[in-house]
Amino acid sequence: MSAPIDFYFDFSSPYGYLASEQIDALAARHDRAVMWHAIVLDAQFQPQGGMKIPTALLRSDYVMRDTARSAVFFGIPYTEPAQYPVHTEHAARAFQWLNDRNPDEARAFAHAVFRAYFVDGRNIAETAVLLEIAETLKLDREEVAGAFSDVATKARLKAEIDLAEARGVFGSPFFIVEGEGFWGNDRLPQLERWLEKGPF
Amino acid sequence: MSAPIDFYFDFSSPYGYLASEQIDALAARHDRAVMWHAIVLDAQFQPQGGMKIPTALLRSDYVMRDTARSAVFFGIPYTEPAQYPVHTEHAARAFQWLNDRNPDEARAFAHAVFRAYFVDGRNIAETAVLLEIAETLKLDREEVAGAFSDVATKARLKAEIDLAEARGVFGSPFFIVEGEGFWGNDRLPQLERWLEKGPF
Repeated sequence: MSAPIDFYFDFSSPYGYLASEQIDALAARHDRAVMWHAIVLDAQFQPQGGMKIPTALLRSDYVMRDTARSAVFFGIPYTEPAQYPVHTEHAARAFQWLNDRNPDEARAFAHAVFRAYFVDGRNIAETAVLLEIAETLKLDREEVAGAFSDVATKARLKAEIDLAEARGVFGSPFFIVEGEGFWGNDRLPQLERWLEKGPF
Repeated sequence: MSAPIDFYFDFSSPYGYLASEQIDALAARHDRAVMWHAIVLDAQFQPQGGMKIPTALLRSDYVMRDTARSAVFFGIPYTEPAQYPVHTEHAARAFQWLNDRNPDEARAFAHAVFRAYFVDGRNIAETAVLLEIAETLKLDREEVAGAFSDVATKARLKAEIDLAEARGVFGSPFFIVEGEGFWGNDRLPQLERWLEKGPF
């Protein structure tokens, strides 16, 4: 199997959610693995060259409409969340902690968190909501609760985010394969061409 | 024939260039006309809600790479310009002036300006370059020169830009059909679905 695809996302990103429902199937068509990376695109996030997407744009009527329209276009269930954006540190820490132990469980957790937020209208900033999700997946409640705030998982997430910044990630979703970055669901066709035919 | 598609672009926008090479064929497949609108996305441009795309992003290595890659993906000739961005007021005024008289000539002028900048590496901020292009198209050199700076064409372009701001345009390319906005080449598939099957 060739080099994996790195998939960076923020749990608060609607486009990240739409990507999460597509990337594994796309990669599987080309016999590639996907490494999922939860990051947090908050005020602390400082991508290279200050290439930050303005909050006014992310919260705009255009983006709200575009997200809903894109979900229909891709055939993915979507309901505009009541709160947006929300804090995603706890979800991201739990994800990374799980991912270091069992990537399959981590992926199931990520899908459940994204769908709770973007389909069922749950507030995934609340640790109670995240623990409910963990229980549904038969994860150990105490262990997941520990991952929300212990020193090691905080440091683990920070390292993941620092690495993302250093690799040129500046939004969600962001994909890297063989050193090539692709930003957004709308670059999935180009990513797929890259996998099919090589660099262009 | 149903409502036309409004196509907004800045002559300095590489994505605007890539759109200019695709939009008429797409519209023709669905029996739609396209109304071309040159605008200038400079410091004076103040879209609704401050949804301005940051200059750091527009000039980033990512966007430079993405533009070149997208051109290959779409099968459109492209050379990264030596100067970027450049002032496009003169080109936009001449375009709007022409467009009010003869949209076919204006479109030919727009294609020639875009290709001069993004294929042949000419600096389209220079009026001498624009006049050369006008001559190649058998336009009246004196008339075009007048359009660069006379009071009426300045006011005409300003009105076009004010209208774009009021309609929610915030980048290039930007398409509006039946009140629905689509930003970017990457939304052309969604625009096409809209034309095929109606609102979604």
